[in-house]
Amino acid sequence: MRVLYLNGPNLNLLGTREPGVYGRLTLGEIEAQVQALARTLGVETEFRQSNHEGELVTWIQHSPATHDVIVLNAAAYTHTSIALRDAIAATGQPTLEIHLSNVHAREEFRHRSLIAPVCRGIIAGFGGHSYILALHAAISLSPLQK
Amino acid sequence: MRVLYLNGPNLNLLGTREPGVYGRLTLGEIEAQVQALARTLGVETEFRQSNHEGELVTWIQHSPATHDVIVLNAAAYTHTSIALRDAIAATGQPTLEIHLSNVHAREEFRHRSLIAPVCRGIIAGFGGHSYILALHAAISLSPLQK
Amino acid sequence: MRVLYLNGPNLNLLGTREPGVYGRLTLGEIEAQVQALARTLGVETEFRQSNHEGELVTWIQHSPATHDVIVLNAAAYTHTSIALRDAIAATGQPTLEIHLSNVHAREEFRHRSLIAPVCRGIIAGFGGHSYILALHAAISLSPLQK
Amino acid sequence: MRVLYLNGPNLNLLGTREPGVYGRLTLGEIEAQVQALARTLGVETEFRQSNHEGELVTWIQHSPATHDVIVLNAAAYTHTSIALRDAIAATGQPTLEIHLSNVHAREEFRHRSLIAPVCRGIIAGFGGHSYILALHAAISLSPLQK
Amino acid sequence: MRVLYLNGPNLNLLGTREPGVYGRLTLGEIEAQVQALARTLGVETEFRQSNHEGELVTWIQHSPATHDVIVLNAAAYTHTSIALRDAIAATGQPTLEIHLSNVHAREEFRHRSLIAPVCRGIIAGFGGHSYILALHAAISLSPLQK
Amino acid sequence: MRVLYLNGPNLNLLGTREPGVYGRLTLGEIEAQVQALARTLGVETEFRQSNHEGELVTWIQHSPATHDVIVLNAAAYTHTSIALRDAIAATGQPTLEIHLSNVHAREEFRHRSLIAPVCRGIIAGFGGHSYILALHAAISLSPLQK
Amino acid sequence: MRVLYLNGPNLNLLGTREPGVYGRLTLGEIEAQVQALARTLGVETEFRQSNHEGELVTWIQHSPATHDVIVLNAAAYTHTSIALRDAIAATGQPTLEIHLSNVHAREEFRHRSLIAPVCRGIIAGFGGHSYILALHAAISLSPLQK
Amino acid sequence: MRVLYLNGPNLNLLGTREPGVYGRLTLGEIEAQVQALARTLGVETEFRQSNHEGELVTWIQHSPATHDVIVLNAAAYTHTSIALRDAIAATGQPTLEIHLSNVHAREEFRHRSLIAPVCRGIIAGFGGHSYILALHAAISLSPLQK
Amino acid sequence: MRVLYLNGPNLNLLGTREPGVYGRLTLGEIEAQVQALARTLGVETEFRQSNHEGELVTWIQHSPATHDVIVLNAAAYTHTSIALRDAIAATGQPTLEIHLSNVHAREEFRHRSLIAPVCRGIIAGFGGHSYILALHAAISLSPLQK
Amino acid sequence: MRVLYLNGPNLNLLGTREPGVYGRLTLGEIEAQVQALARTLGVETEFRQSNHEGELVTWIQHSPATHDVIVLNAAAYTHTSIALRDAIAATGQPTLEIHLSNVHAREEFRHRSLIAPVCRGIIAGFGGHSYILALHAAISLSPLQK
Amino acid sequence: MRVLYLNGPNLNLLGTREPGVYGRLTLGEIEAQVQALARTLGVETEFRQSNHEGELVTWIQHSPATHDVIVLNAAAYTHTSIALRDAIAATGQPTLEIHLSNVHAREEFRHRSLIAPVCRGIIAGFGGHSYILALHAAISLSPLQK
Amino acid sequence: MRVLYLNGPNLNLLGTREPGVYGRLTLGEIEAQVQALARTLGVETEFRQSNHEGELVTWIQHSPATHDVIVLNAAAYTHTSIALRDAIAATGQPTLEIHLSNVHAREEFRHRSLIAPVCRGIIAGFGGHSYILALHAAISLSPLQK
Repeated sequence: MRVLYLNGPNLNLLGTREPGVYGRLTLGEIEAQVQALARTLGVETEFRQSNHEGELVTWIQHSPATHDVIVLNAAAYTHTSIALRDAIAATGQPTLEIHLSNVHAREEFRHRSLIAPVCRGIIAGFGGHSYILALHAAISLSPLQK
Repeated sequence: MRVLYLNGPNLNLLGTREPGVYGRLTLGEIEAQVQALARTLGVETEFRQSNHEGELVTWIQHSPATHDVIVLNAAAYTHTSIALRDAIAATGQPTLEIHLSNVHAREEFRHRSLIAPVCRGIIAGFGGHSYILALHAAISLSPLQK
Repeated sequence: MRVLYLNGPNLNLLGTREPGVYGRLTLGEIEAQVQALARTLGVETEFRQSNHEGELVTWIQHSPATHDVIVLNAAAYTHTSIALRDAIAATGQPTLEIHLSNVHAREEFRHRSLIAPVCRGIIAGFGGHSYILALHAAISLSPLQK
Repeated sequence: MRVLYLNGPNLNLLGTREPGVYGRLTLGEIEAQVQALARTLGVETEFRQSNHEGELVTWIQHSPATHDVIVLNAAAYTHTSIALRDAIAATGQPTLEIHLSNVHAREEFRHRSLIAPVCRGIIAGFGGHSYILALHAAISLSPLQK
Repeated sequence: MRVLYLNGPNLNLLGTREPGVYGRLTLGEIEAQVQALARTLGVETEFRQSNHEGELVTWIQHSPATHDVIVLNAAAYTHTSIALRDAIAATGQPTLEIHLSNVHAREEFRHRSLIAPVCRGIIAGFGGHSYILALHAAISLSPLQK
Repeated sequence: MRVLYLNGPNLNLLGTREPGVYGRLTLGEIEAQVQALARTLGVETEFRQSNHEGELVTWIQHSPATHDVIVLNAAAYTHTSIALRDAIAATGQPTLEIHLSNVHAREEFRHRSLIAPVCRGIIAGFGGHSYILALHAAISLSPLQK
Repeated sequence: MRVLYLNGPNLNLLGTREPGVYGRLTLGEIEAQVQALARTLGVETEFRQSNHEGELVTWIQHSPATHDVIVLNAAAYTHTSIALRDAIAATGQPTLEIHLSNVHAREEFRHRSLIAPVCRGIIAGFGGHSYILALHAAISLSPLQK
Repeated sequence: MRVLYLNGPNLNLLGTREPGVYGRLTLGEIEAQVQALARTLGVETEFRQSNHEGELVTWIQHSPATHDVIVLNAAAYTHTSIALRDAIAATGQPTLEIHLSNVHAREEFRHRSLIAPVCRGIIAGFGGHSYILALHAAISLSPLQK
Repeated sequence: MRVLYLNGPNLNLLGTREPGVYGRLTLGEIEAQVQALARTLGVETEFRQSNHEGELVTWIQHSPATHDVIVLNAAAYTHTSIALRDAIAATGQPTLEIHLSNVHAREEFRHRSLIAPVCRGIIAGFGGHSYILALHAAISLSPLQK
Repeated sequence: MRVLYLNGPNLNLLGTREPGVYGRLTLGEIEAQVQALARTLGVETEFRQSNHEGELVTWIQHSPATHDVIVLNAAAYTHTSIALRDAIAATGQPTLEIHLSNVHAREEFRHRSLIAPVCRGIIAGFGGHSYILALHAAISLSPLQK
Repeated sequence: MRVLYLNGPNLNLLGTREPGVYGRLTLGEIEAQVQALARTLGVETEFRQSNHEGELVTWIQHSPATHDVIVLNAAAYTHTSIALRDAIAATGQPTLEIHLSNVHAREEFRHRSLIAPVCRGIIAGFGGHSYILALHAAISLSPLQK
Repeated sequence: MRVLYLNGPNLNLLGTREPGVYGRLTLGEIEAQVQALARTLGVETEFRQSNHEGELVTWIQHSPATHDVIVLNAAAYTHTSIALRDAIAATGQPTLEIHLSNVHAREEFRHRSLIAPVCRGIIAGFGGHSYILALHAAISLSPLQK
């Protein structure tokens, strides 16, 4: 199983900014933790980050050729991007939506996800550990569900 | 660590009804899977189910004396119960909100959770495996976060 | 055919309070009228009333083992209970929604029924006679519809 | 007692179109069933259908001279016609609102009835049998209610 | 000056029904009062009533050939008819909107007029006298305004 | 009969500003026209204008001792003042709401009148002639209506 | 292939009124252009216009016996008529929605079409040429789509 | 005079949890203060608390036989329970709504009370002293008001 | 302790108008009752009334120099005045919001208070007795709360 | 005449994904069909596709130097991009909005187009044939309209 | 150039109250800073403050005779006063809207300005310096813009 | 002090397009004016423009290393980009929001700014001079505010 972690806008700033909201781990450190676990589970993982909605769309489009599951932290685009939603629906690629913070405890406009209805499941609020849980979840996707 | 799994209305029907939406596992079978994992992790778990909002409120109120974390699948009450929200806030008990199905892919009125803002995190859409992921998540709650 | 009449909160007060809105018959008198008709039609009927949402949910859950059709006057819970809706959907039990008064001629918040979408049909506004009509309706449910 | 059944737009197509939604009976067959029952009850019935809102309004206006009760399946006009509502209110003619399908289980815009608040009662969801139930209901209208 | 009074659905019932809301004058009696005044002012008036939206639309379309001003009591169609609005706008015919009752003191759905934005002015709430005032208003339309 | 014309904020600018919207007559010229007509009808009239909501409220409160009817052009306060509404309701003074322009053809926020529901009638859109029509209307108020 | 062009309220005024919005062609001139093209394509076309919602409903109901496709410019009824929608759905007749003007660049209430969801496609904003384009579109309806 | 104090969900936690919001008094201590005052005023008081909506409904139903006035702190159910509202309306029992905190200074969903419209008056924001003020208010209910 | 009672628009009419809604006591009589109680409690009270929003704002601004607590019946301004809210917030003066009637049982626009979120507590629905209860409440404000 | 076809996010996947919704033609095949027709009409066409909102904006900005008309299938950006709208308005470039599917028969959020108000016309629902119809429409743009 | 600074309700409290929100400068100190700058620029300035909406309206009405530009900090009236808006529109006086705080970072009801649409520009969030910036802006108003 | 001016989509078209709305200056000319002033003030300024949301996000992320303040004219992205908001919040970089036109006097969807709540202040409506005022404002940011 090959899992592609896609990270949306501003996630490259993780760890150095607003640790009260997002925690103190950098995206690189989270990636290292995920890959350590992945190795023990015999899973391949890859991390990418982009501030461009269009680049994230393109990565999703290409993913079926190289990966089995997407773990998507779309950050701000979660709430505004129909293009990401359409890319997931068009490729039919199994996708998990994750968030570092509990988005439902924040501003009203972060409560609606345009992407959630086309994802398999959602994990939010566990800081960097949301990425670890997503790996457990990706592995457990039943053949029927996938 | 002692984890209390609270299950709301109609979850006693799991496995025998609407398997297309909720999967084929009974609540008892999920409990068995969770406890098997819990034993390997040295965690105690307890499962309860009630169709009564008031009984779930009472269980939350009493939980700080006996448990460290609540995993709450409030089912229908997720969307209508301020009383459950107040119980969580009043006790300050760390609580994880879970769902079997991806509630955001269902009816509009299931998109709003009254409970989420007072929970630590949310896991939804992985069928019975949501309960397993919640155990991983409960263990990982950082002291600071708790 | 066995028909279960479930009555929600405050319907135990029927006949003694607000006769201008709900009529002068007690729930017991309505039950007597329904049972007189039921006997002539060779149908078994049973009446229950509860002020507890959870108890109504449980009765719906158990009904497939003992009854063929539910006639449900959920009263106030009509407008607030997703748990009742889920119980009907989960059991797949054929259910008729009834009301004594014409709910659409009353306050705005009584115009929305959370239960109606999972019921077979709706009868409202005929006072105690709504219960009689529901018996006629229950009998007429086509095999296909049921 | 003389009962006037008024049928709104597209109900002349009953039975031949969309039987999955509206059933396989034609309006003529429903009328025959209603009249068979009416004869045993000593009630006169008359059926009319029109695609014109204005014609339905006129029929309601004239009905007090010739009929005692209206059974109105306003179909699409249920949700858009204040003129029908005003005609019912202006004549004070006792009127029952009926529907073949369970309108609350269909599109959002079919959930609101402009006519319901001025009707005595509502019967919906029983296919052609809604017309039969309406006859039972019409007979039972208490003098006080009428 | 020739003034065309167009009356919408149910106004043919005036005087005989709901006098508490609409007054005790029949439409014929109002017409007689208006024509008595019109004669003293050297104005021609004509009254028409229809329950059909389409007929009212047609009358508006033809009016520029025969009349100078329309006084329109669209009744229920005030709140639902874009077709009437378009007819007024398309012909450019100066039109006054009138009502017997104070529509703003009635149900919420009577507060919005689809026709008002394309009318010159509005007179409402004076019972049959609204028709008299409209004649005064029609005469006073400044050339510039017309 | 004594009629009090109350004019709200900015109406003292009439005639000199925005003639395209409000016409070219000053408030003084309108008053002169009204009083010329009033004399022929044996009616006393008085004009006042204020930019202060509180002063308009006070004038309404005192009016029953000195006047029989209020003609109120509340201008901007039409849409924001509950205090004016309460003053009219509290005194029970018969009040006519008038406007120079057709408020329904202007900005959305001018479509709602807080005052209309407690007024006897509404006249809008006839420029200065709205004041003349209001005098005709005031005279015609039936004893019953008043 | 036989194509029925149905035209709703006020379209009989085309060309003579509001040319700035709707263009200078009369409906007859548009019909002539369409028929000229139709002849070259071996298609039969028929034009009808009505101001009556009910008549348009009836024409749609009868069309399957005589025509293969409807091109419907419902004008004002686009935004208010559920009856037209139901007629299209009930007959299953392939229908194209067209408009002369770009309805999305006009008033808010013209942005919602009740008919569009049951039509095959939509063409709007090309003046009389919308009718020509609809003929091209009608011919191209794939068997699968039809 | 006999006054029944009914307390809704989570109020049994008073004093021990979230003193910043709800104050440091336990419900027992508030009861003691109220009863001390009640004795000096010759009034009987009784305190009950439940987390069950249905139990609160039942207590209201039975109260007319044993008490003259209800003081109701419905807590979370204030905002979600139509059943409590119906119980108050059905029994006609004079009821005062009270709250410890100023609900209007908290979350949006706490601003709407479903119960307030059927209560005599409301007291909110004075901590435990709201219960004392309610006793003063209960005594002062005029015979006419009651 | 010195308590300033501020009364908003139309409250000078109390007792003489609409006694069904507001009771039969004049503001002067209420003041007399309050002062009688105040003397027994060793509290100074002062009553003022104004129809001017700006004057009420000014009184609030000056009050910290002369009074300890404000009891504010803002009447109609309760629902429209941000200026009063800002004055309370800017001075930090402890303020109680009171109403004679139960505003939540009246028109929709009276359900929202712009002032409540910056007040310590709310008392509504007890007629003139609301003023008496406010005095009890003012005395009980804990030092911490003030 | 030179026509620029701009295609938004995910349209590069056409034909290979979700043929039930979007048809079986690839974007390249549609382009070939369009160009075949264009040659017979003496029109130049160019196709571009991008997943980047910013790139689409830039192409629109540059188009007046190289093309006469834009045919824009903005896909997901139709509903979220004010930047595209501003680009069209700023350049004044005649633009046609097209869609493969009938967007009004899909999710609610696809019913609103931010781009439509600045386009000349709209064509939707004809699959790949929408592109062909757009070429016919582009040619027919009257000089006045352009 | 003569610039009139108008200050709305509660701005007389500046500097002494809520310095965290509004800064520590008094209105007099701000005035001194503005006038110091004005002298160097050869501009006359005048400061006025009122808690009365009506007085601010009157000042705007009179300003064309004495001033060239208004700088308006309407404070709370920004969000509730149509009368101020009408005064600005009626006089056509060039007006700049300013705020001390960033109103968009505060309560929802402060996000809407009724005045902004008739102002030339808006400056908000710079504390007392907003007044200085407004002077720079006033000077720069192009003749065309003014 | 180093100030970074970031310009969003379509601002590269300034001066050549829609001068009625945006003025006749090009972005280059505005930059020249700003830099002339900056030199006299001893401030460094840099101008960048992009049509890509992602590029603007990246520029904001990198700015703390090279600049002290951002002046951001996000144009269309003002109303749709949560990503820009998050970038400003994440970097904590002091940011001023500016607009050429008075956005509140334009379409409804331009009234809401997603960015404003995380900016220090807002300047809008002064054409190219908004950029000059922003420089004055940037300099004046108090240390405390920054």
